[in-house]
This record gives sequence, structure tokens and C-alpha cells, in this order.
Amino acid sequence: MANKIEGFNFEQRHGKDRVRVARVWKNKEGRHFMVEWSVSISLLSDCLPAYVSDDNSDIVATDTMKNTVYVKAKECAEQLSVEAFSIELAKHFTSYYKQVTTAIVKIVEKPWERVNVDGHPHEHGFKLGSEKHTAEAVVKKSGALQLTSGIEGLALLKTTKSGFEGFIRDEYTTLPETQERMLATEVTAVLRYSYESLSSIPQNPHYFTERYLEVKKILVDTFFGPTKEGVYSPSVQSTLYQMARAVLSRIPDMSSVQLKMPNLHFLPVNISTKDTQIVKFDDDVYLPTSEPHGTIEASLSRFWSKM
Amino acid sequence: MANKIEGFNFEQRHGKDRVRVARVWKNKEGRHFMVEWSVSISLLSDCLPAYVSDDNSDIVATDTMKNTVYVKAKECAEQLSVEAFSIELAKHFTSYYKQVTTAIVKIVEKPWERVNVDGHPHEHGFKLGSEKHTAEAVVKKSGALQLTSGIEGLALLKTTKSGFEGFIRDEYTTLPETQERMLATEVTAVLRYSYESLSSIPQNPHYFTERYLEVKKILVDTFFGPTKEGVYSPSVQSTLYQMARAVLSRIPDMSSVQLKMPNLHFLPVNISTKDTQIVKFDDDVYLPTSEPHGTIEASLSRFWSKM
Amino acid sequence: MANKIEGFNFEQRHGKDRVRVARVWKNKEGRHFMVEWSVSISLLSDCLPAYVSDDNSDIVATDTMKNTVYVKAKECAEQLSVEAFSIELAKHFTSYYKQVTTAIVKIVEKPWERVNVDGHPHEHGFKLGSEKHTAEAVVKKSGALQLTSGIEGLALLKTTKSGFEGFIRDEYTTLPETQERMLATEVTAVLRYSYESLSSIPQNPHYFTERYLEVKKILVDTFFGPTKEGVYSPSVQSTLYQMARAVLSRIPDMSSVQLKMPNLHFLPVNISTKDTQIVKFDDDVYLPTSEPHGTIEASLSRFWSKM
Amino acid sequence: MANKIEGFNFEQRHGKDRVRVARVWKNKEGRHFMVEWSVSISLLSDCLPAYVSDDNSDIVATDTMKNTVYVKAKECAEQLSVEAFSIELAKHFTSYYKQVTTAIVKIVEKPWERVNVDGHPHEHGFKLGSEKHTAEAVVKKSGALQLTSGIEGLALLKTTKSGFEGFIRDEYTTLPETQERMLATEVTAVLRYSYESLSSIPQNPHYFTERYLEVKKILVDTFFGPTKEGVYSPSVQSTLYQMARAVLSRIPDMSSVQLKMPNLHFLPVNISTKDTQIVKFDDDVYLPTSEPHGTIEASLSRFWSKM
Repeated sequence: MANKIEGFNFEQRHGKDRVRVARVWKNKEGRHFMVEWSVSISLLSDCLPAYVSDDNSDIVATDTMKNTVYVKAKECAEQLSVEAFSIELAKHFTSYYKQVTTAIVKIVEKPWERVNVDGHPHEHGFKLGSEKHTAEAVVKKSGALQLTSGIEGLALLKTTKSGFEGFIRDEYTTLPETQERMLATEVTAVLRYSYESLSSIPQNPHYFTERYLEVKKILVDTFFGPTKEGVYSPSVQSTLYQMARAVLSRIPDMSSVQLKMPNLHFLPVNISTKDTQIVKFDDDVYLPTSEPHGTIEASLSRFWSKM
Repeated sequence: MANKIEGFNFEQRHGKDRVRVARVWKNKEGRHFMVEWSVSISLLSDCLPAYVSDDNSDIVATDTMKNTVYVKAKECAEQLSVEAFSIELAKHFTSYYKQVTTAIVKIVEKPWERVNVDGHPHEHGFKLGSEKHTAEAVVKKSGALQLTSGIEGLALLKTTKSGFEGFIRDEYTTLPETQERMLATEVTAVLRYSYESLSSIPQNPHYFTERYLEVKKILVDTFFGPTKEGVYSPSVQSTLYQMARAVLSRIPDMSSVQLKMPNLHFLPVNISTKDTQIVKFDDDVYLPTSEPHGTIEASLSRFWSKM
Repeated sequence: MANKIEGFNFEQRHGKDRVRVARVWKNKEGRHFMVEWSVSISLLSDCLPAYVSDDNSDIVATDTMKNTVYVKAKECAEQLSVEAFSIELAKHFTSYYKQVTTAIVKIVEKPWERVNVDGHPHEHGFKLGSEKHTAEAVVKKSGALQLTSGIEGLALLKTTKSGFEGFIRDEYTTLPETQERMLATEVTAVLRYSYESLSSIPQNPHYFTERYLEVKKILVDTFFGPTKEGVYSPSVQSTLYQMARAVLSRIPDMSSVQLKMPNLHFLPVNISTKDTQIVKFDDDVYLPTSEPHGTIEASLSRFWSKM
Repeated sequence: MANKIEGFNFEQRHGKDRVRVARVWKNKEGRHFMVEWSVSISLLSDCLPAYVSDDNSDIVATDTMKNTVYVKAKECAEQLSVEAFSIELAKHFTSYYKQVTTAIVKIVEKPWERVNVDGHPHEHGFKLGSEKHTAEAVVKKSGALQLTSGIEGLALLKTTKSGFEGFIRDEYTTLPETQERMLATEVTAVLRYSYESLSSIPQNPHYFTERYLEVKKILVDTFFGPTKEGVYSPSVQSTLYQMARAVLSRIPDMSSVQLKMPNLHFLPVNISTKDTQIVKFDDDVYLPTSEPHGTIEASLSRFWSKM
């Protein structure tokens, strides 16, 4: 919310972060389903008097927001996607409170996966996996919607079929060119859907979960290429672009994809004493590093957006 | 950098994150001065062929960016502010490379403080403090500049003179009103200067360091009020606004201040068994929590900006 | 190393922590194998003069230890278990340096897993999984060995078949008894082998990896029980004991197992306003928490040990 | 607690970790005092039936332990040291429960410091500092006591007066000798008091706080030496020993001191291209690193102990 105030321009928002909730559903056959979410809510609202004249009468208490998460989780009679729940919550705040013009709900889902025992899925047992599914819904009072899904912490590594050559060489350049290196990254993806209003979204409660899994498969498959030969990566930039393009080409209702793919360097190990080389690198021994790391990020979209 | 490509819109940037450097200077009297910085560089540049046609000839290798940090640190013959160094680096990338249209350099300074031994400053001894000084310079090829200083992790707490009353009560509200509560937060501040070009910034190498310390004092003093009576906070919103206004009122060359002040709740402890209350809260025993927490953020500016 | 010195008793050790190394092997068919290890080395050695008389002549520089990790990784012509590599390193330090009486090498393996593309294993692609495999070898100059494998971060959760009843009720007790609750934990396991000398360990380079996978399966299967009915847990204590006993019963060359199983509480959500209950718990909506958490740990062994 | 069970040896403990509590006291003049503690409790107790026969009747619920922290915090009418509170809690568990033979209470104090405004201490304002004060009390039913204070995260750095020479040179050694380097560490100290029973400890509620501050000053002063000349460190080992010895020499009721002082390397920066050296190290530009790091730890005691 932006306002003029005492000669200054003023923008503000308030909300509640890290509201944790788990929800369990049971079907008739006795199988349990569960999710664990960490919910962040941010409201843009007309509540200037709280800031400038100590009058809280237009403030939705953040404690009330927290309660609402639990009420809405309770109301969900069937399992639903994290995207659908973020929309549900955001819609509530803009429709219930006259002061609230926009609600932003971001959720991170903890990667609990149904466990297998002796090759069979367990009815009520879960084990924590790795990368995380996120969602963000921005809902306006008008019903206008921006919906994004996200992937966090998808760590991928290939031991060959990666190089980096022909870049700018100047007086500050020491990096040798190579056609053979380790390539490791931790993909963060932000995937924007083209639905622009609450009324236009698909009603299948698992729709967005299925898209999420589909996108993850596209990203992984494109990064690695065929199982035997793989695919050569001439740069992180090129690989990132191929991954982004594959997503937009195959998911028609996604309007943009933003990828962050840090280049997590595995340095070749060569060690020499005064007299002799005691470790000579032969694409075998690497020093993995966390800092510094390259940062490559890009956004590909069907329309014009701002990263 | 935004481009049209294969029917899509495309934006990209690349850089190097977490480049760590420490720099030591010595004066004639034998006193040592030191800083430790973690530098992030991000370049907007014309290098589309790397993404779409496997041609890296317009790519500044991120390894080269890393080297440049050390070269530039070496060239600094005298101690300088973290803001001045971020400008120096950003300026280099936009002027040295024809492909680079904008450089974004963000630095976090580790809070090493000169140690005192028996009340006297030590010539070469340092101890780690708490909150962190950050800076970000965005420099365009034209010489246009956006400069921000930042404070991260400034944790403040007052044991009284805080309340929260008169907020919206509805069917989801359970929070009682109060005129007496603990108030704890961890301030993140982003302070934007009004200098709009490289040529207009102050030449004193310590100028921005002095402003940083001044702002920090204003924020702390406004949060707590006079040492005896303090100052009553009717909401985090109100206190945040007073802090932001105080900064802009007293620092003429700062054009905007953005504050994030999470409300880190210290819950009153009341415990009852079936028979009796075993802990009755009397503004004495609290349960400090990390999640969930309130989020209150706002930006106050002399001109129109987007948070 | 313990010594008498200036009237005091003195014990010391030194080493190198977080030495990161990745090792890639390729077989004739073109399949790549890789591991990423973070190695910690600690040496007990006769080097007192370094502490008391500024004489470093008996000190193995920690930088030399680091180099040795890479030399030894290079020398491994075939993939080997993390246990075997920790033994290899520890053996080197005690045999190579006359000053070193005991070497302690602890390694954490990053959970890179071969990726599948369309159901087939990829020749050179890997993806990060969740829980971690660790190993610790303690080797003395005599060849005496203590070897432990470990599991870190094995997060398990079941949505039913857990209760807690009949515990001590006193004036400080408010917890209700229950026959139905969520049970969540993050298992840390330390598994000690019975081999007591370097000469007695199995020579198969994958032996300990296979045992590790076997133990993990036993722990998971025992925690969850059969896929349909599960198994009732009357306390974390009871479940932990069943898991420990199952390991020792089935792995004959393991002499002890230590388990830490924090009780990560999922609190029932009930919310009431002044007028009405707005969320009534029905084994459906939970508040997951990180702090505080219960701590239950125990060690079961074939011989007498100290936890 | 160690027992024989089904042919195995069995040891177990249970407790509650990360119980957070803040306590505020006010004096007659209106000055507020506050502490924030994170408490961990671990009980050794006779409760084997819970593990082996699903009988919880000897189990102190960890929820009850948590409640007890708040009850005991409430009962403290005056501010007391973190050591005194840890003793108070541990004493309660061993005296109140017949099953509990030993209680181990570890507390980490958050470093809230009274804030100064214009040079004067604020009556109720606090700001977070850096290193942390910890305490651990181990109390047996007999009244036997082991009490340790601790310091965590005391990060110290000196830019000169440090070297490392004359260490073992062998075929794995590449580190050059030097008389001039940066020395940085993060001290963890565990300080054991000589009081062996509850009845023998000093009654002054601030006694241990004063000792803590005294020890911290001794450690810092010894590490850095006089403000002008400093003191030369021929190795981390030597400096650590001087620090430990200074503590035991000056604090008569401390029976042992254990110090961990990782060597956090600041690497000299030298960068060469094919043609020329672009950064030549002159004790000015360093690369600070977190991994790997040296580990040096030692324990100095008046009696014989096991590290």
C-alpha cells in the first residue's frame, strides 16, 4: 500500500511468517495422507492510522492471521495442492476484510514422502525427502490472481559432459578453458501460471501438484540428457536456457519460468611439493566448494515480465 | 537484460556470490586497520549467444569477477567504506567490458571491532561484534548510480512500554488486548542515498561509514526512547514509522529508508493443572519464540519508490 | 594425549576439519561412480613442546593432513565404502608418523544418489537425497581399531499408532494421556562394529556400505511396522528399544548401537474465542514444532560400553 | 543409566531440549533486568519398563520437565547466574523424583546486553551482543555436583604477531613456514569448577557471572597481549596453552579449563595470469575461509580428567 504522508511517500505491509501447520486426511480404506506446510501471509491494507496516529482499528492482528490458517486447514475436507491452499487463504483475507486490498500467501511444503516397506506403500508412514515444493498466491480484492509454484533445493550433479570455453580473456582472467568438468548446481525454480483470476483456475484439487511433478521431471531430464550418452553442457547459461525452454514448451498454462542455477564449483585437485607433484588431476579427485560460487539466473516468459 | 528470443521474452544475469576478501592497512604509527567482506557481483550484459547458441565469447567468466575483487582490494591504498568499495567494483565492470550494461555489487561486512585491553584500543586485535553493515551499488554504463547501505541483524528488546490495543476483533480473533508486553525485533534496514551518479558522491572515504553509524544510533535511540522513561510503543507499526521518519529527518542525503521489523513474540507464561494454576503470569516469565512471528515492513521515501 | 606439565594435567589433540573431497571412478562400460566426503582428522600425538616451549618440530601441520586426504583419495583405484576410506586415512597417520599414537578420522558422506531418467539409471547423473551416511575410525599405532558407522538426519513420521499413557502425574504435570498421536523423529544412529584390529576387517570394499543399507532398512521397517496395520508405539522409549534390538539381532558383527530419537512434537490444534471453539481437534490439524523437543537416547551393546 | 537386559547391556537417558524461557526482574528504582535462556534437561533414571515392557509408570514426561523450567523461573525472586539456575533445576529433579539418579541441565544464555543511549544505561532496553555464556550442572541424588561454565562463539582475530615454523616436513607437506600471518579463531571454552557438592557452592547469586566475565577477560588479554606490541604466537597450540594456564593460575576455584580454538585460515592472495602476477601478497589482501579449518583443542586441569 502506497500513500502520501507528512510530505513523504509511504508503503507498508504486515503479516505473519512461519505459521506451521500439518494436516492429515484418511480415506475409507484406511490410508492416511498428510502435508506439512510453513505459511507466510502478507497483507496490503488501508491501515495508515496505526503507523501515524496510534490507532489500530484497521489492523488485522497477525495472531488472527495465524488462527485463520488453522481454521482454513480444518475446513479442507480433502487433500489439496499447496497452490490451492495458498489461493484459499489469500482469497479469504481480501474478501473478509474491507481494509485488505491484496493478500500474498507463500507456502513451503516439507517434503514428506510415503514410505515403502518391502516394496509396498505404507498406509500411514512417511519419510523426509529432499527438494521442496513451494507456492505463492497474490490475490487482489477484485479477484485478480498471480499464482506461482516453486522448487527449492533441487541439487543436481553430473560428472562429465560439461565444459566452458571461448569466454572473454583479459588481464584479470586466469581460468583455463575446458571441455571436461564436473557440473553441480542447486536449482531454484519459480513457475508462473497464466491464470489471472480466481474464477479461471482448474478445479481438480491435485492439478497443480501434478504440474509440479511434471516440471521437476522436465528440468531433471533436460539437465542430464539420455541415460547412456547424456547431453553436453557448453555453459550453465546454455543448460539453464534449455531447461526453461523445455518447461514452457510442454506446459501450456505456465506463462513464465525463472531459474536460478548457482555454479557450485568442484575444483580439480593438483598438489605439488617443491620436488614433485603428489596429486595430478585426471578427472578423478575434486575439491567441492560452497563459496564463492557462480550465480546464473534467467527468466523466460510468454509475456513481458520483470525479473 | 531483457530480450526477445524464439518467441519468448528473456531476461538474464550472471555473477559471483560469496567472494570473501579481507584487507589490512597499517598506518605510520603501527596501527592496523582491517575489514572482512563477502562480495556478490551480478552483471547485466549482452551475452545472449551463450544461452541460445553455445557461444561464450561475450561472457565474463565468474572466475574473472572473483579475481577482480582481489585486484581492486589490493589497489585500495587506504581504508575505505564498504559503500565506496562496492561502487569501485561496479564501476569497473561497466567501464571495462563493453558487454556489461549494469553491474550490481552487494557486500556484507563482517562486524570485526577493534578490541580494548584494559580500556585501551589494541593496535592489531579485533573481536567479532553483532549486527552487520551491508552496501549495494547498482551502476549503469552511463554512470547512473543507485546506492544503498544496510543494517542486518540489529536485535533489540525492551521489557516494558509496549502494548497493542484496539485492533480488529472478529470470529478468528483470540489475542487479548494489552498495555504491557515485551517488545523484541531484529531490524533489517535498507537506506537509499540520493546520489544518482558516480560523479556526485562524497569523496571522503569514511563518509558512508559515518552515516551508517549515525543511522544506527537514530534507530536505536528512537526504538528505546529516553533512558529513564523510555517511550510507549502502541504497535510495531507505530514504532517502525517513528524510526523511519527520524532517519529521513536527520540525514538529508538519504532519500528513502526501508525497515523490516519482525515482531518476535515473547509469550506470557501461564500454566494450569487440573487442580490449580502453577505459573501465573505477572510480567515476569515469558516464552520466547522464533516461529511464527509477525512481519511488519515499510518504506518511507522523499520520492516515489516501489518496495 | 595426557601429560603432566608445570604441575597441571594436560591433554591435547589437533587436526583438520571439513576437508572436502569428491572422487569419481569410471568402469569399462562407461558408468561413473562418485562420492563426496567431508573429512575430519584428529591426531593424538607426542608434541608437547609446541604447547610449552614454542618448538613445532613434532607437529604434523594440519595443511599436510589436508593434502594427505587428496593423495589417499587419488590412490583409491576403485570405489570403496566411507568406512574403508576412514580406516585407510587413520592407518596412514599412525603408521607414517612416529609421534602419532592415535588417529581419529570422521567422515560425512553427502547423499548423492544416481538419478533415474524414464526408469533407467543414468550413467553419470546424480541427485541429492536426504539422510547422511557417516563413519568414524579410531586407529592406534598398535593396529587396534574402533569402527563406527552412522546415520544422520533420518526423519520419520507416522500419523497414527502412537500413544503415551501411564507416566508419572504430579503437581507439575499437565500433559494429557493419549492413545492416538502423531509420532515424528529424526533418527541419529551410531553403529559400532566388533572388529578390534586393522587386520580383522572384511576386505570387500562395499561390505560396510551394504551393512549401512541393511541397518537403515531395519530401523525404518521396525519404526513403521507392516504396511497395512503398522505397529503401536506406547512411547518413543519403547520404539527406540525395538529398533536397537532388531539391529543387534540381525547384524552379527555389530557390537553396539546407539540411537538418538528426539520427539518432534506435533501439537493438537484447538482454538477458542470467548464465545466459541473455532478449531476442534479431531486427529486432523496439528502444529508442528521444533522447540522444545523431547530427547530420548539409548545404547544397546553386546559388551559393556559408556554412552 | 546402565542395565543388563535380554543379554545386552543397555544405557538410556531422556529429557527435554531447547526449552526457552525469559525472566524479567525489576528493582525498586524501576530498573529492569532480564535474561533469556535455552534450557536442556537430561535425566538418568530407573525407568527400564518403559523400554522393554511398555510400562511408563516410572517416566517423567518431558512435558512435565518443560513446565518445571517455568515454575522454577517464576520462583526466582531475584536475578541469578545461569550456573545457579542450572543447579537449581538439576537439584529439583534428583530430589523430587525417586527414579531420577542424576540430572544434567545445560543452559545457553542469549547475549542480551543493556543498551546505552547517549552514554547512559537504559532502564529497560537491551541489544543482542555476540559470544554466549553457557552452564552445565550435573547433580546426583547424593548431592554430588559437577559444574561447568562455558563460552561459545568468542571470535578473535589479530592481523600480525603470529607465525608457524619448524613443523614436520615430509612428502605430503606444501605449507611454507612463516613468521607473519593472520591469526583468527572462534574460542569455545569449558570451565570446570572445583565444587563437588551442592552444599559447597558460593551463595552470592552473581558469583559465577563475575567469574565468567573474569575468565573472558583473561582469555582475550592473553590472546592479544599488550595493546602496543601484542604478543608473538608461534602456533595456535602455544597461544591456547598460555590462555588455559592464565585461567587456572588466576581463578583458584576452577579445576580445569578446556579450550577449542579452530585455526580459521586467512590465506595470502597471490594471483598470476600466464603473463604476469596481478596480485602479489604483501600482508595486505587475504582470502578468509571457513573450510577446511585446523582444529586445536586441549584441556588443562588441576586433577586427572578425561577430555
